[in-house]
Amino acid sequence: MKKLCIAILGATGVVGTEMLKALEERDVPWGSLRLLAAPEEAGKKVLFQGRELTVEGAHEDSFQGVDILLVAAANAISERFSPVAVRQGAIVIDNSSAYRLDPRVPLVVPEVNPQDIKTHSGIIANPNCSTIIAMVAVNPLYRRHRVKRMTVSTYQAVSGAGIRGLRELEQQVSAYLKGEKLEKDVFQHQIAFNVIPHIEAFQENGYTKEEMKMHHEGRKILHDDQLTVTCTCARVPVFRSHSESIQLVFDEEVDAAEARELLRDAPGVKLVDDPVHNVYPMPLDTSNQDLVYVGRLRQDLADRHALNLWCCGDQIRKGAAVNAVQIMQLVIQTYFP
Amino acid sequence: MKKLCIAILGATGVVGTEMLKALEERDVPWGSLRLLAAPEEAGKKVLFQGRELTVEGAHEDSFQGVDILLVAAANAISERFSPVAVRQGAIVIDNSSAYRLDPRVPLVVPEVNPQDIKTHSGIIANPNCSTIIAMVAVNPLYRRHRVKRMTVSTYQAVSGAGIRGLRELEQQVSAYLKGEKLEKDVFQHQIAFNVIPHIEAFQENGYTKEEMKMHHEGRKILHDDQLTVTCTCARVPVFRSHSESIQLVFDEEVDAAEARELLRDAPGVKLVDDPVHNVYPMPLDTSNQDLVYVGRLRQDLADRHALNLWCCGDQIRKGAAVNAVQIMQLVIQTYFP
Repeated sequence: MKKLCIAILGATGVVGTEMLKALEERDVPWGSLRLLAAPEEAGKKVLFQGRELTVEGAHEDSFQGVDILLVAAANAISERFSPVAVRQGAIVIDNSSAYRLDPRVPLVVPEVNPQDIKTHSGIIANPNCSTIIAMVAVNPLYRRHRVKRMTVSTYQAVSGAGIRGLRELEQQVSAYLKGEKLEKDVFQHQIAFNVIPHIEAFQENGYTKEEMKMHHEGRKILHDDQLTVTCTCARVPVFRSHSESIQLVFDEEVDAAEARELLRDAPGVKLVDDPVHNVYPMPLDTSNQDLVYVGRLRQDLADRHALNLWCCGDQIRKGAAVNAVQIMQLVIQTYFP
Repeated sequence: MKKLCIAILGATGVVGTEMLKALEERDVPWGSLRLLAAPEEAGKKVLFQGRELTVEGAHEDSFQGVDILLVAAANAISERFSPVAVRQGAIVIDNSSAYRLDPRVPLVVPEVNPQDIKTHSGIIANPNCSTIIAMVAVNPLYRRHRVKRMTVSTYQAVSGAGIRGLRELEQQVSAYLKGEKLEKDVFQHQIAFNVIPHIEAFQENGYTKEEMKMHHEGRKILHDDQLTVTCTCARVPVFRSHSESIQLVFDEEVDAAEARELLRDAPGVKLVDDPVHNVYPMPLDTSNQDLVYVGRLRQDLADRHALNLWCCGDQIRKGAAVNAVQIMQLVIQTYFP
């Protein structure tokens, strides 16, 4: 078996750090591991499996000999380096949104459409965090009964905006308790003790980019251009894990009890649905692990073809880093067996 | 004009205190004002319009001479005292949920169905807080285009659980920052930095009581048994003001621009819908005032008959105390002109 050279671009950020953790936990076979980041991060030391690795500043020649590149960086960085890495022979797994809707780029949730990786021409895209969480929860039902329509309201954690989002909530809460003025920088408004119905830029149709991602990416992942996903994305003062309130309209009647059975053993899902004993998914419980918790399954009151559910997942792990590492594991199985 | 005797039962609680504020602000004509509460609260002093009032312990003979009784107490207390007060000649405006679905009791949001107060036989009920906020936002649209169906996901503040809910969030946040153990008492789980999709008891159909209130009370307020409201209620770590993500399905096509015009001058509504400039309703902005802020109006992506919106309102003021005082003002105009 080939000794693989794996590299992470953006290795020092929230998602990059979590990719390293996921690699450690999953015992991925690798020969060398290279950590790439912005030039100002170069020289930093990172401990990995007991070894000290040194962060390199990324530049156009960084990808010689790299077999698989995990990109945990902003769109502009991915657009600059991903095509270069592909030309230098790497398979790129990109967590940015730069290539997600490119028809030549598969968009993959391993529990949903693992076979799509084979259609790649160098880049494989990792979907949006809320979309991954929703897809893992909805796919087991979708496979049995076609979903025509999803209406989603999200409750998204501040770490979706990176480590600066986390710090901003902590600082604001601390300032509030001390009676000091609250400073804001990352979010458009104070996030401590508030809800902000605004994640990413607004589009002409009144939806944000984040809201449209769930629509476009959901269709692409499920290969279903008839599916409509209408989404309202809101930021809540939670450190980690996104929650989603989802209404699913199927093209036939689906029973909540059957849905529960379909979810019970579904890959990547933990059914957490015993409300009478106060058991339902919550962001505190889903943080720092890889499953999407699904619960509060119940028949819609208006539409016998509709079900409502509530799901939560760690958007940094399954919603980003872990999903990318799972894609990498598929790539290794498929291309480097 | 008769000098009215007004009494508040539960005058020392969160809602009772806010009723007093609303009475002060609105300059309601009254001859005497009596503050009733649990026996252990008796003797407390409350400042009202510069005068010191003394809280009385409530008992079965407390209501002699009372013209209007505002009840800001739990169901059991209302069930014990409201019928007694009616027999002693008072008109009761009850903020508990004890009588809301009683066919002899009108359920009133003054902006929506003020005429209903005339059908009372002693008790007029004040609706659930989330329901009031949704009704104020939806009614101006409903009047022009019938709504067949509402799908609502709520983001509810901790003060919905009273002053103890407020304190619990503050204490948990403070303990978190000090690295201490978080204690919980009021909520089923830690609420600091968490979301709990559970408000009030679960019913057999998998919905909570709180979720079913929006359905049953919405129908009663709008006099529309065909309307279906499917709701998911979640508690978020916000001190005050509930937020709601609402999808409305009309029986015909409705344009977002028209909806915006209908809401612009609607009673009790403030249209706050300029997303490109980061302007939309948020709980921080709607606290300690009486309007329901409505924004993020946009066409649904699947259904041309549907619109989505986001609204926020202070659930202690318009969602409870202020709505009750507005009902009282209608009662005074109608019965004590």
